Amino acid sequence: METAIKELKEKAQAAKKGARQLGQLSAEVKNRALTSISAGLNSSKDEILAANEIDCREAEASGMDAAMLDRLKLTSDRLDDIARDVLSVAALPDPVGEVFDVRTLPNGLLIGRKRVPFGVIGAIYESRPNVTIDISVLCLKSGNGVILRGGKEALHSNSALASVVQKAVITAGVPGEAVQFIDNTDRVLVNHLLKMDSFVDLIIPRGGAELISFVRENAAMPVIGAGESVCHTYVDHNADINMAVEIAFNAKVQRPSVCNALDTILVHADIARSLLPVLATKWAGAGVEMHCDERALSILKADSSLKLAPATDDDWGREFLALVAAVRVVNSLDEALEHIEKYGSGADEAIVTEDYSTAMRFLNEVDAACVYVNASTRFTDGGQFGLGAEVAISTQKMHARGPIGLRELTTYKWIAFGSGQVRL
Amino acid sequence: METAIKELKEKAQAAKKGARQLGQLSAEVKNRALTSISAGLNSSKDEILAANEIDCREAEASGMDAAMLDRLKLTSDRLDDIARDVLSVAALPDPVGEVFDVRTLPNGLLIGRKRVPFGVIGAIYESRPNVTIDISVLCLKSGNGVILRGGKEALHSNSALASVVQKAVITAGVPGEAVQFIDNTDRVLVNHLLKMDSFVDLIIPRGGAELISFVRENAAMPVIGAGESVCHTYVDHNADINMAVEIAFNAKVQRPSVCNALDTILVHADIARSLLPVLATKWAGAGVEMHCDERALSILKADSSLKLAPATDDDWGREFLALVAAVRVVNSLDEALEHIEKYGSGADEAIVTEDYSTAMRFLNEVDAACVYVNASTRFTDGGQFGLGAEVAISTQKMHARGPIGLRELTTYKWIAFGSGQVRL
Repeated sequence: METAIKELKEKAQAAKKGARQLGQLSAEVKNRALTSISAGLNSSKDEILAANEIDCREAEASGMDAAMLDRLKLTSDRLDDIARDVLSVAALPDPVGEVFDVRTLPNGLLIGRKRVPFGVIGAIYESRPNVTIDISVLCLKSGNGVILRGGKEALHSNSALASVVQKAVITAGVPGEAVQFIDNTDRVLVNHLLKMDSFVDLIIPRGGAELISFVRENAAMPVIGAGESVCHTYVDHNADINMAVEIAFNAKVQRPSVCNALDTILVHADIARSLLPVLATKWAGAGVEMHCDERALSILKADSSLKLAPATDDDWGREFLALVAAVRVVNSLDEALEHIEKYGSGADEAIVTEDYSTAMRFLNEVDAACVYVNASTRFTDGGQFGLGAEVAISTQKMHARGPIGLRELTTYKWIAFGSGQVRL
Repeated sequence: METAIKELKEKAQAAKKGARQLGQLSAEVKNRALTSISAGLNSSKDEILAANEIDCREAEASGMDAAMLDRLKLTSDRLDDIARDVLSVAALPDPVGEVFDVRTLPNGLLIGRKRVPFGVIGAIYESRPNVTIDISVLCLKSGNGVILRGGKEALHSNSALASVVQKAVITAGVPGEAVQFIDNTDRVLVNHLLKMDSFVDLIIPRGGAELISFVRENAAMPVIGAGESVCHTYVDHNADINMAVEIAFNAKVQRPSVCNALDTILVHADIARSLLPVLATKWAGAGVEMHCDERALSILKADSSLKLAPATDDDWGREFLALVAAVRVVNSLDEALEHIEKYGSGADEAIVTEDYSTAMRFLNEVDAACVYVNASTRFTDGGQFGLGAEVAISTQKMHARGPIGLRELTTYKWIAFGSGQVRL
């Protein structure tokens, strides 16, 4: 283990050295590296798929469930998609080097903030091998060195993918040291990595809630990651019923396993009798189970085709990540706001209303990363927002909120051009 | 103690409630509160000075040293200054409500980032009572609730000042709950406060290194605070000697006890013989002691009027906060950059040079909050930078770097104006 720790430290040091050079490179050179990664994914397809085959076989033998296996699996088509995504990151504007808030002080000193990379980003992730490429590419484009530590189930796949990245960056004239892959998946090494704050500036955990909270609790450096994401949609009494049904249906059903899917629907009492039966029928058609408060239950219980259950206290503020929704009838906007304040996690919240002042109050008063009027919470996504790919969706308030794209992977420094100024 | 913990929790909850309302208030109302605080400092001068008198008498009796006593002491003039500073914060633009990065997505959804307060800021500080006003005012203006926990030596002063703030905000129509003062200075309560991340969004420690690292290690919420600040000035062989001497003199002598004062001067070997004797004589006139490497020592040792000592390994990367400077002769810009990378703390770094490419390399390659060409590092300050007052100078990379002014006390949320958009 001591050798492994020493090796890890050497890799972290090398990443820092590589990152220093990478941080100075032009968008042109960085884009060349990305294009070259994309090409490498095509030309090394056979090796990557063979490596993935080993991981999948071992995972199957160890009894991994079908959903996990599907996340682990690479195919020729999936690799094509990944390679195409790399090119789309190459096409995004480079955030590094932007100079903003420039001003000349009364003494003539010209100062401004210049956007710069963080330095080295450590990525700790689980079984999806595509993360190796996603994170490498976003870090490279934003000028950051990266240390990759994927899950042990995907070790062969990740190793093959990381090797494509490393070869490609060197071909493009980017220092290979800037991308480090940890091939020893002993958990103890993660603990050590999390303490190397003199080499690693930022940690991004990608995976389940357990991984993320482990990283948050143990990292000596800052962490950017998604917390729990409990999403509410409030249907006001002045809502367009058809619009409300479409939005709630989309928010719950379009991809139920993701963080911006609807968890709880709050319905104003005055519209509950007209809205809930329509929504419930539509949801039931997609297999949605509804955990209803008493009033919602009394409206819906006559219809035996619905999957209904009485809501328990645990249902409020719960992230379902499945075809389940909690349903509550409220008497007012204020009651909805209080519910969201109490049970929300500062992620994605929506209102459906035709009333202008109600819409504006909701936008102003809800404290969350993304607040929507008359739209599905499913839009919270770097790609949808026009930021390009994202490494995570943040529910924290510091630094960046919502999608973490290229710009959010940078910081700034003040630069000052003087001519001998001293402070009086 | 249990009652005290319960009270603390109630105060934190109340602050959150007050902050929710405060966050919605216009600049006009918040400025009225600030004006009213400034007036209150004048009209309550007698009570404040009487309270401060008690603190000073107790501190003197307990043997507090003169420098600490001076920090604790309020006078009529000092109160006038504080009251004037409050008005200057009132005159600053309000960062809250700014909407930026607005775009209409192809599906018609209008999205943008809106600048909003963090929520509740906890301030933990030591013996300087003016911090009670400084932090309250910056938090109020940026729409944040604040929980004040000052040092026990200043309890009477802080209590009198906090009461001025609380009365003034209520007069101005701001919820009084938004400003909470902890009058129990038992250290155990700080530990509890640092765990109340469901009510407190951000902690700002103001004081010595020990306090700051205690807060960093124990806070469950994000922390913004100054870390150690080791500042280098590198004098290139192409420097204007006179300018270099003036800059180094100012950076070391103008206010040696602060974080942006010079700690180490790095001098190119080709200019060392012409520069060092002039600088040393000027520094000696101000009482500066020089801890020199061998080469610097050999240049200066003949002059017995200088206060010289051989530098030890501990002198590199040391924040002196006193009239002491470490001096090292280097052979090149690269050697200077390596020294700064190894020993710097990411605070304030300067180069003096007439060579354009050298200046640009230094600006680009030094990884620090503020990087200067041909100017004193003493300029790192919210007021000097035109940001207005600051609560701290950050050496961290997340969220904000350098002076933490009003805008840096805010975050943003995404707001989206839809017309029924759902994700395809």
